[in-house]
Amino acid sequence: MLKNDLLLKALKGEKVDRPPVWMMRQAGRYLPDYQKLRAKYSFFERCQNPELATEITLQPVEQIGVDAAIIFSDILVIPQAMGMEVQLIPGKGPLLPKPIKTAADTEILHIHDITDRLHYVFEALSLTKKTLDGQVPLIGFAGAPWTLFCYMIQGKGSKSFDEARAFLYKNPVLSHQIFDKITKATISYLKEQIKAGADCVQLFDSWSGMLSPAMFQQFSLHYNQKIITALSEYCPTILFAKGAWYGLEEMSRMPVNALGIDWKINPQLARKLTGNTITLQGNLDPAILLSSIPNIKNEAQKMIKSFGKERYIANLGHGILPNVPVDHARAFVDEVKSY
Amino acid sequence: MLKNDLLLKALKGEKVDRPPVWMMRQAGRYLPDYQKLRAKYSFFERCQNPELATEITLQPVEQIGVDAAIIFSDILVIPQAMGMEVQLIPGKGPLLPKPIKTAADTEILHIHDITDRLHYVFEALSLTKKTLDGQVPLIGFAGAPWTLFCYMIQGKGSKSFDEARAFLYKNPVLSHQIFDKITKATISYLKEQIKAGADCVQLFDSWSGMLSPAMFQQFSLHYNQKIITALSEYCPTILFAKGAWYGLEEMSRMPVNALGIDWKINPQLARKLTGNTITLQGNLDPAILLSSIPNIKNEAQKMIKSFGKERYIANLGHGILPNVPVDHARAFVDEVKSY
Repeated sequence: MLKNDLLLKALKGEKVDRPPVWMMRQAGRYLPDYQKLRAKYSFFERCQNPELATEITLQPVEQIGVDAAIIFSDILVIPQAMGMEVQLIPGKGPLLPKPIKTAADTEILHIHDITDRLHYVFEALSLTKKTLDGQVPLIGFAGAPWTLFCYMIQGKGSKSFDEARAFLYKNPVLSHQIFDKITKATISYLKEQIKAGADCVQLFDSWSGMLSPAMFQQFSLHYNQKIITALSEYCPTILFAKGAWYGLEEMSRMPVNALGIDWKINPQLARKLTGNTITLQGNLDPAILLSSIPNIKNEAQKMIKSFGKERYIANLGHGILPNVPVDHARAFVDEVKSY
Repeated sequence: MLKNDLLLKALKGEKVDRPPVWMMRQAGRYLPDYQKLRAKYSFFERCQNPELATEITLQPVEQIGVDAAIIFSDILVIPQAMGMEVQLIPGKGPLLPKPIKTAADTEILHIHDITDRLHYVFEALSLTKKTLDGQVPLIGFAGAPWTLFCYMIQGKGSKSFDEARAFLYKNPVLSHQIFDKITKATISYLKEQIKAGADCVQLFDSWSGMLSPAMFQQFSLHYNQKIITALSEYCPTILFAKGAWYGLEEMSRMPVNALGIDWKINPQLARKLTGNTITLQGNLDPAILLSSIPNIKNEAQKMIKSFGKERYIANLGHGILPNVPVDHARAFVDEVKSY
């Protein structure tokens, strides 16, 4: 039994005394204790060792007081488990040295043993769940197919993933084949996360906002809908399609429990586009956490008032920035909790 | 007298037989003749030598057949003329090695002699105008204050300009002082471009879409409005606030002749938000030019049908990508011209 089930209540649209609060990338570089582990172990060591992943996942619960834990991992474990080489270079971000350029390059992609290869994530979830001992819910997650495809084609981070977009236009049939594989892998992966202890799951479509509305429909919405629909009977789901304001209306009709929104849309408009019927999660500009504590508190209050207390999960509009002072992150969380 | 005044007609909302077409960054890396000059001269040599700038400006008019020339320059000439060191590193983009961090850093910014320092741009405009001999209109341009501020604070390109956004939250008063200076410099600069021969001017707010709607209002819209208003009596103006779909309605009420839009919004919605009263410019996904020629032609046709032939300037939704084959760029332009 959960001692704090605010997040799950908000996801189900049940009444709450105050909104739950957590932060995307809350287990990360702004925490000095995370930095210590980062200095000692490589990214994949931290990810693949269940004890380390558990320790990192719990840090923000213990040190910041968030209302949910999110398992420490990375969205690129899926392309890696599908057979691609993935490096995470400190200070530079992800690098896939052999990105997909042709149909022949896709032959290495295999998904039949995907959950075997990702056993370490499920072990980390089980251990975290046990260690949490019901303090707060545990969130599982995966990257959305389009966002993973961006890295698989472009081979690294990019301002606008031009090559990935061009690939869609040049090779629509091959693109759909790749998306199908990623989608199947993601469904198996998230189902296994739920079995291992995730109380709910979030799908991160970080780069959906780089697509035209027509391409978004075909390559983001379509596959995200498949994943959300396949999972909806197992646990509550959150879909965060960053930048895809034009898809909010349609996404709100999916069997999804909550939609994440970024800071580039007014809460009022997001409520209007989603018909006031669905839980929304977001959307403080992460840069606000770099301003003064009084300003952070003021902006947090304004945000909650705009969204309303019900059907709402307080969060940032994107991941917390690495240079945020810990007491600023705590001020944000405390302010929501005092609402 | 202009032999081809389609662009000016479209800007004034006059009837046209077909929409005019040009491409952002049309004088650039996808052209082999530009690459040759790029191998021989540094970026600032190409910018600051009126003969070179003229030659580069005319290349796409002669080789691709666009309906307008846009003077070859860079938005960062303004921060440079204001006293900041600006480097343009091939393959890496702009670098301002001493970005603004504190109030003291702003002391170097001076704007009284801004047009003296930028004389080379006006010389390039005059020479281009003379060489064009009325073939097509000549577009002048500048970066919008927020977009210039991004580089002045962050010191280089960025996916989301977090430091620049954080600066706004941390130092609102100082930010407004910097914006005031940039705005004044930009007005003087663009007025002088018009005197030197620009038939119309475009303001590029490339990073407006990174701001929350509230910050967009204060720091993008407000200053862009000042600039557009100050210039509106001298020549037609185009404002391209990339990503700022939430500001389209309000921007359409400015004394502006056209609004640029990116590929992340449907033409129909853009028309609706701007009340069907203003000329729109855009918005082909630049990645489409990397697909097949039949697909490029098909997408160009679809785009024109969606916007309608009147009050419309065919363009890309952002700058042309460096790896676009020349015949693909030409296919796009030809397809619009055959409409």
